Amino acid sequence: MARFESLTFSELPSGVWRTRLRVRFGSCDPAGIVYTPEYLNLFNGVIEDWYGDALGLPYHELVGTRRTGLGYAHVSADFAKPSSMGDVLDVAVIACEIGRTSLKLTVHAFKDDTECVRATFVTVTTSLVDHKSIALPDDMRLALKNYKARCGEPASPASTSLRFGPSSLPA
Amino acid sequence: MARFESLTFSELPSGVWRTRLRVRFGSCDPAGIVYTPEYLNLFNGVIEDWYGDALGLPYHELVGTRRTGLGYAHVSADFAKPSSMGDVLDVAVIACEIGRTSLKLTVHAFKDDTECVRATFVTVTTSLVDHKSIALPDDMRLALKNYKARCGEPASPASTSLRFGPSSLPA
Amino acid sequence: MARFESLTFSELPSGVWRTRLRVRFGSCDPAGIVYTPEYLNLFNGVIEDWYGDALGLPYHELVGTRRTGLGYAHVSADFAKPSSMGDVLDVAVIACEIGRTSLKLTVHAFKDDTECVRATFVTVTTSLVDHKSIALPDDMRLALKNYKARCGEPASPASTSLRFGPSSLPA
Amino acid sequence: MARFESLTFSELPSGVWRTRLRVRFGSCDPAGIVYTPEYLNLFNGVIEDWYGDALGLPYHELVGTRRTGLGYAHVSADFAKPSSMGDVLDVAVIACEIGRTSLKLTVHAFKDDTECVRATFVTVTTSLVDHKSIALPDDMRLALKNYKARCGEPASPASTSLRFGPSSLPA
Repeated sequence: MARFESLTFSELPSGVWRTRLRVRFGSCDPAGIVYTPEYLNLFNGVIEDWYGDALGLPYHELVGTRRTGLGYAHVSADFAKPSSMGDVLDVAVIACEIGRTSLKLTVHAFKDDTECVRATFVTVTTSLVDHKSIALPDDMRLALKNYKARCGEPASPASTSLRFGPSSLPA
Repeated sequence: MARFESLTFSELPSGVWRTRLRVRFGSCDPAGIVYTPEYLNLFNGVIEDWYGDALGLPYHELVGTRRTGLGYAHVSADFAKPSSMGDVLDVAVIACEIGRTSLKLTVHAFKDDTECVRATFVTVTTSLVDHKSIALPDDMRLALKNYKARCGEPASPASTSLRFGPSSLPA
Repeated sequence: MARFESLTFSELPSGVWRTRLRVRFGSCDPAGIVYTPEYLNLFNGVIEDWYGDALGLPYHELVGTRRTGLGYAHVSADFAKPSSMGDVLDVAVIACEIGRTSLKLTVHAFKDDTECVRATFVTVTTSLVDHKSIALPDDMRLALKNYKARCGEPASPASTSLRFGPSSLPA
Repeated sequence: MARFESLTFSELPSGVWRTRLRVRFGSCDPAGIVYTPEYLNLFNGVIEDWYGDALGLPYHELVGTRRTGLGYAHVSADFAKPSSMGDVLDVAVIACEIGRTSLKLTVHAFKDDTECVRATFVTVTTSLVDHKSIALPDDMRLALKNYKARCGEPASPASTSLRFGPSSLPA
């Protein structure tokens, strides 16, 4: 199985939202590295912050107040290099595909400027009242399009936004 | 993104190892269903039990005593139907591909006889002393081959082992 | 700070409900032992099973269907000996005090017949509609009294039920 | 069981180290509030940050490089008010007692200026080589004494440092 081709953090377009994760003791396993399922938990927290900070749509308002389910139909992650307690990861979120009732995000984690984990999350929007899928709310769609546009501009002539597009991502 | 085609539990070959998972309160999120990263944690526990019960190789001996790392290079999961607190899932583990230094497993979770989650875990065996990849230990390879052979016989003429093979699994 | 005085598993009254916990990889930390907060998670699952198996009141029905909150006002735990991946713990639940709107449970975990962890959970019953405290439901109170009575009989002349009573427990 | 008497955040001595916790979706349970064991996990992360930020002793260096175990002999927590997804908690750490081989910390979490959770953690320092208890390392003892001294000065004449002392804390 081919690993993904690691990006460098500095190649990310300047408009991409990013945050930092400290790798803590409680996230690590007896091998001393981040426990694999915990990566998904940490990244879910990153995505939650991204909704509020990058889209201006606080996650707890969407899920709690507006009862819009943001559950996943698919998640996947590829691991190129382990991370240990004390590491600080730079993490970025890319909105790859905006569908009618679904959304594909990738989360890219970097250690010392080199991508060490890449995860994909496919969200299907649902009503938390009857658990049926619904169209993305209009304000969410608009915020996503604006975010995607901001991410489309390469940081430098050497990098192109295409590298972050669906075609280079794991299916 | 196409969802996987759900199997029924009764279609599994009789040789496939299976266990049961009670969905507990602490595994569920504010939407009342299993928190996505928690599925990966629960399935990791299932795989751990499978090493001991189906392969005869207790996980903690491989990882702890023998210092053989069983970390993941890739994980993915597809979700067809949510599970709630109080549900009891039937879960089965299939060894799809046995490579030189890697192993591809799928975990299939069933609710009321219908597959609701399917996850793929690609393990790369490493030395926990220097964290370099190593060949699968001989006894592990043998146990895996024997397990795969036991899973190869269909439960009934209507089902074929091919349905569990690599070609029908998400990449 | 004085540690608790460890019981032996064989001293437990025969009526005490008990279960087994396998210590898995994902429950352990980089020191190779169960991560402290994870003990509380594991014990919460034990208590959940106890509601259904020992009281005949499935937890998800109380919390989910009947909307009776079983949240904690207080938890505490004392650790006498660490547990590692691969250990199998015997775990017992004692109902110490049954109040009007609250319930005090102790969870006792044993490794090789010797108590290694003792935890106390004080539950306050609430309505999940308005989050106000409510009296213990009648059927729950009755089931608790019956359970406490079953636990009151010592397993042998050498042990007495008093040792499990409130006075010997951490405040 | 008497609840603790809630402090207000503004009463904390100015020298007390504090941080903020966003309550995320993944930390909450089907009742929509922080899952009790998860509080201990979140607070363990807070304590880890406190070691580095307030004591100048990064946790992963103590535990990883220096192989000094910082495991708990006792933890407890009292809950006065639940917290929900989207809440932001102010959290402070107090070093209550500095023993020869042990350390008692309290973690105080505030929501809208009122203490909603108070937890106590008793750490016993051990050698991670032979898992025997050891005296607190000298630099750690010195840093703790300095921290305790900084916390001893009340923020205002109305509050006194005694309120944070051992006598007012749950045993």
